Amino acid sequence: MAKHLIESQQFTKELLFKLFKRAEELRISPSDSLKGKVLTTLFYEPSTRTRLSFESAMLKMGGQIMGTENAREFSSVSKGESLADTIRVIASYSDAIVMRHNEEGSAEKASQVSNVPIINGGDGKGQHPTQALLDVYTIHKEIGRLDNIKIAMVGDLTSGRTVQSLCYLFGKFSGVQIIFISPENLKINQNIKDYLERHNIKFTEEDNLEKILPTIDIVYMTRIQKERISPKDYEKAKGKFIINDTNLELIPKDARIMHPLPHVEEIDISLYKEQNDPRVAYFRQAENGLYIRMALLEQLIPTN
Amino acid sequence: MAKHLIESQQFTKELLFKLFKRAEELRISPSDSLKGKVLTTLFYEPSTRTRLSFESAMLKMGGQIMGTENAREFSSVSKGESLADTIRVIASYSDAIVMRHNEEGSAEKASQVSNVPIINGGDGKGQHPTQALLDVYTIHKEIGRLDNIKIAMVGDLTSGRTVQSLCYLFGKFSGVQIIFISPENLKINQNIKDYLERHNIKFTEEDNLEKILPTIDIVYMTRIQKERISPKDYEKAKGKFIINDTNLELIPKDARIMHPLPHVEEIDISLYKEQNDPRVAYFRQAENGLYIRMALLEQLIPTN
Amino acid sequence: MAKHLIESQQFTKELLFKLFKRAEELRISPSDSLKGKVLTTLFYEPSTRTRLSFESAMLKMGGQIMGTENAREFSSVSKGESLADTIRVIASYSDAIVMRHNEEGSAEKASQVSNVPIINGGDGKGQHPTQALLDVYTIHKEIGRLDNIKIAMVGDLTSGRTVQSLCYLFGKFSGVQIIFISPENLKINQNIKDYLERHNIKFTEEDNLEKILPTIDIVYMTRIQKERISPKDYEKAKGKFIINDTNLELIPKDARIMHPLPHVEEIDISLYKEQNDPRVAYFRQAENGLYIRMALLEQLIPTN
Repeated sequence: MAKHLIESQQFTKELLFKLFKRAEELRISPSDSLKGKVLTTLFYEPSTRTRLSFESAMLKMGGQIMGTENAREFSSVSKGESLADTIRVIASYSDAIVMRHNEEGSAEKASQVSNVPIINGGDGKGQHPTQALLDVYTIHKEIGRLDNIKIAMVGDLTSGRTVQSLCYLFGKFSGVQIIFISPENLKINQNIKDYLERHNIKFTEEDNLEKILPTIDIVYMTRIQKERISPKDYEKAKGKFIINDTNLELIPKDARIMHPLPHVEEIDISLYKEQNDPRVAYFRQAENGLYIRMALLEQLIPTN
Repeated sequence: MAKHLIESQQFTKELLFKLFKRAEELRISPSDSLKGKVLTTLFYEPSTRTRLSFESAMLKMGGQIMGTENAREFSSVSKGESLADTIRVIASYSDAIVMRHNEEGSAEKASQVSNVPIINGGDGKGQHPTQALLDVYTIHKEIGRLDNIKIAMVGDLTSGRTVQSLCYLFGKFSGVQIIFISPENLKINQNIKDYLERHNIKFTEEDNLEKILPTIDIVYMTRIQKERISPKDYEKAKGKFIINDTNLELIPKDARIMHPLPHVEEIDISLYKEQNDPRVAYFRQAENGLYIRMALLEQLIPTN
Repeated sequence: MAKHLIESQQFTKELLFKLFKRAEELRISPSDSLKGKVLTTLFYEPSTRTRLSFESAMLKMGGQIMGTENAREFSSVSKGESLADTIRVIASYSDAIVMRHNEEGSAEKASQVSNVPIINGGDGKGQHPTQALLDVYTIHKEIGRLDNIKIAMVGDLTSGRTVQSLCYLFGKFSGVQIIFISPENLKINQNIKDYLERHNIKFTEEDNLEKILPTIDIVYMTRIQKERISPKDYEKAKGKFIINDTNLELIPKDARIMHPLPHVEEIDISLYKEQNDPRVAYFRQAENGLYIRMALLEQLIPTN
């Protein structure tokens, strides 16, 4: 059976550290280990960033890529074909499929009929497990540990699938403290809270960003996802919690600002500081995505 | 002069069997024989399936791919350029071009000005010769012969270019018997009938699918092409001829159900049977497309 | 610091001749010198021709490609991300970026934040330096020199960025004479005239194409850019200056007709003459783009 990556819970602590180690090796000396293999990127919802990150990872491993950035319009979906049939056929041409879809659960559905690995590149309000993977990789690389960290997660905690996927991964570690900071109407979902409680992860909900900033190791900012909420909810939430040149100074010297990107107004730091302040970690975070995805593809795609 | 593939009639019996043999070899041991060669996929009409099948075939032969899935909107067509000029320029960057176009005759037109092979990936209501190629390859692989077969072709026989391309190929073989089964308003075209008569291929037109099913080697189902007919014609034709779990039992044990895919309501077989009944051949048929296209690209693209 | 290509003025005469020489070598024996490198094509404005030319060049140098032909709709621009952030992230996945954008100055802006080479593939009404590069390469190859040439530039001289980029390159050579021929409403911009004067390039403005044709080495035709001007301006300008089978005879035997393509009604030469008259240089010109871009990519992308 093919190994799929659908949810971040699937990663064991052991596998995570193995992937971190391999990513560091690949950063220094690229590999050709996926030569002759073909990765298909099947995107029903556009995401140039995630798609190119996977494609670059595959190419840098010696593999090849093909795909569509507009599967909803261009694939046989428009002719009424089921997702299962599309996957069955495309799987027969590919050695792995990265799929982004607007509907939660689509990646899981695809994995049930695919005989090659399905990698969930984001499914609606569901999960985005490789974003969580690069997030913990970045925390580990920047802070030096994953146990006993204190992290503020800020912004749209309802629709943000990266926050959810990341919380599931924190369940694997001990001594993690999470502070959720969000507009009233975009609070973290109950199922995440239940999960954290079951895994003994301490969390609180706060609404004073400035009070929290001096106390954390990581502040994880997220964008208000305009496209997934009502205009009214958006107006209420927009600009409520911002990191700017002023409150940046409250953040400890060895703490880090992370963001899954793209960012809009919730990060308002001057260009000079963005380029020179070591606490601004989100561009390194994006780059880390390349190396950890190289390691992941190597892990998932069987070679002869 | 470059060798082009515009119509299925171009294949000789000898070439077909050569391609079948090579496809079987490539299935077992891939080749690097197209290393350094670039295939352009130029699609004026979307088709993720056909495009990815060609792209995968090229990559699996060691070649490279580039292209557009939206040529109608993005290429210089929108600036008023002629197809001939587009092809002249793109041919100068490429070692071969696979083209899908909404207008019948476009591939032929392109081949007149291209100094690299043009492969017709479907032109309007015209032909789709590589679909016919993978169809006869599948029949040969599943049934063991191409002479003396009895095949029912079911569904939209007017707009379905795969049916037409396949009929032209049957003209190369002897003892073939075709039964056309279609809604009143989507019958097989007169020019196909004339062709079959000239080549001594027996055919009949029937309207009772259940009566025919127990007698055939192949039932070749097709989708009613909603996008090429009027809404009224679509309503009349939709759902008229269906293979389901009940009439599936009428099909002989060693016969096969084929379909160019995507399928919609005309195939209504339960998932379990679809995955386990050896008579369901359409997913193997799609996969065969990869190997036969590998063989075809190797045949058409000159190497040094 | 990464070397970028933003404006045609950046080319020195020495570098131009070095690239011409290397292009000729690559035409005969391809190279693998960009193996393992990834070029991203980031197109905010569609251009299948320019994109495929770059992609083919990269592939023919042993490199790999990825990208989007629809960045405006599909990238994080639609989520409100700044161009600078997009570039920062994509640069971290890529070894070089070719960018086309609808706004003048975008390539320059991108180059300020990118740590990999940015190549301007056309920015609004700004420049298109690789088109100018292939243009001078073609003139040199066809006419044998770049000093002391007499060239008529015809058509839309206001919006045509290729004309502007080419004029900037002529400033590097001596004895060049330019005759601008354009509809009243689409005359060459004052800043180009100023530049030419500063660099001692003689130019005149004429409105009788037939009078000029017998006197030139090159007639460089351009399309009226319907999409960049008002319908009224378009109607005034359309069809005003045309090369057809009749006035073609006025052009000296060893002169050449060039065009950045796509062409519409401003070239109205019969197919036979287009394919056989050696003065028709524009399809060779397009092909030259492939080889000179191969040389350019090799020049700009650092290898280990």
